[in-house]
Amino acid sequence: MNFKRVPNHIGVIPDGNRRWAESRGISRERGYENGIGPGFELYKACLDLGIKEMTFYGFTQDNTKRPPSQTRAFQKACIDAVKILSDKDASLLVVGNTDSPLFPSELLSYTKRTNFGSGKMKVNFLVNYSWWWDINKAYSMGTAPGNPRDYFLTNIASGEISRIDLVIRWGGRRRLSGFLPVQTVYSDFYIIDELWPDYKPDHLYDALRWYETQDITLGG
Amino acid sequence: MNFKRVPNHIGVIPDGNRRWAESRGISRERGYENGIGPGFELYKACLDLGIKEMTFYGFTQDNTKRPPSQTRAFQKACIDAVKILSDKDASLLVVGNTDSPLFPSELLSYTKRTNFGSGKMKVNFLVNYSWWWDINKAYSMGTAPGNPRDYFLTNIASGEISRIDLVIRWGGRRRLSGFLPVQTVYSDFYIIDELWPDYKPDHLYDALRWYETQDITLGG
Repeated sequence: MNFKRVPNHIGVIPDGNRRWAESRGISRERGYENGIGPGFELYKACLDLGIKEMTFYGFTQDNTKRPPSQTRAFQKACIDAVKILSDKDASLLVVGNTDSPLFPSELLSYTKRTNFGSGKMKVNFLVNYSWWWDINKAYSMGTAPGNPRDYFLTNIASGEISRIDLVIRWGGRRRLSGFLPVQTVYSDFYIIDELWPDYKPDHLYDALRWYETQDITLGG
Repeated sequence: MNFKRVPNHIGVIPDGNRRWAESRGISRERGYENGIGPGFELYKACLDLGIKEMTFYGFTQDNTKRPPSQTRAFQKACIDAVKILSDKDASLLVVGNTDSPLFPSELLSYTKRTNFGSGKMKVNFLVNYSWWWDINKAYSMGTAPGNPRDYFLTNIASGEISRIDLVIRWGGRRRLSGFLPVQTVYSDFYIIDELWPDYKPDHLYDALRWYETQDITLGG
């Protein structure tokens, strides 16, 4: 695959795991385990293309209001996904509210960026994340002398995650659902109607072919 | 037109005025004046449907980096659009940075909500707006005792503008371009490929028919 211009940073909203399970007549919890393989395939395809950074929307504090069996299932899927990458070429970072028992203790060590292999690609996971928790970290710290914008941007909880060029969402819904509101103010959105466990490399390539045709204005 | 469920609040990104003018071989500035009629038509269609609130993305601080003739043209279009509604049924509010000479003085009086007619529908215009200016208003005020989220949400510059259910963008681009990042965290996005001056009521109705089929989870 050859593209004349690829995004630096892709945001991934892997939606549709429960609908996928239901459509197969298996329990909704089983959807999440079928989302791990696609995540690894997508990571490999992006690594091959020289994408510099990816951020996966793992689960949110809103999501944990679902039945406990589902919450346990998506917690486990996030742990497994991070562990798979911790064996590969990636500079891993997990961002989420660790002050809650809903944050998996297995991932605590990844809340500081950790390099594996040649650490070529930054791979971020949002785990027990919430947009308000993210912003409130900077807000509750207050301002400081200097440029308030830079100070805010570095002190939000996701301050180590850069501006996102392209958000790809699986599962047909056309919304951000609280995904990194600060980093997505200028992002292009690409929606794939198929459900996340049905990931195919062509989904990524279709998104990138579309992205090539977009002009980047950053609001100008 | 009959819908079983309409959004309370529609965000409108009326993009494509310059491309529309170019495609007709007229100067790019002329695009903006052709966007005023569509805005009024859209307002009337929404009023008829009982939509409670609309927010129009007028122009941003980023936009004012364009050539002065263009800046003057979209400033004038915003002034004219607001003036047309000040004669109709609307509760009007203009939100934008008034500390800059780029904010049209003609609109200063509308930065406090003003009722016209029966004032049935809230109509908000973002004029010389910027997402960072919006958030920084709350950020620079700091926190106060009580719920920090509520305090933040009421103290951003757009604090009087409610959560947006549906964003409709004309002109084919699939991005927010800095449009109200806080109010759009859970919004559904509907993109119309046609350019804004080519507005037709069916654009709205198509968006609303699609919106009826979406489940509203607010991130849950």
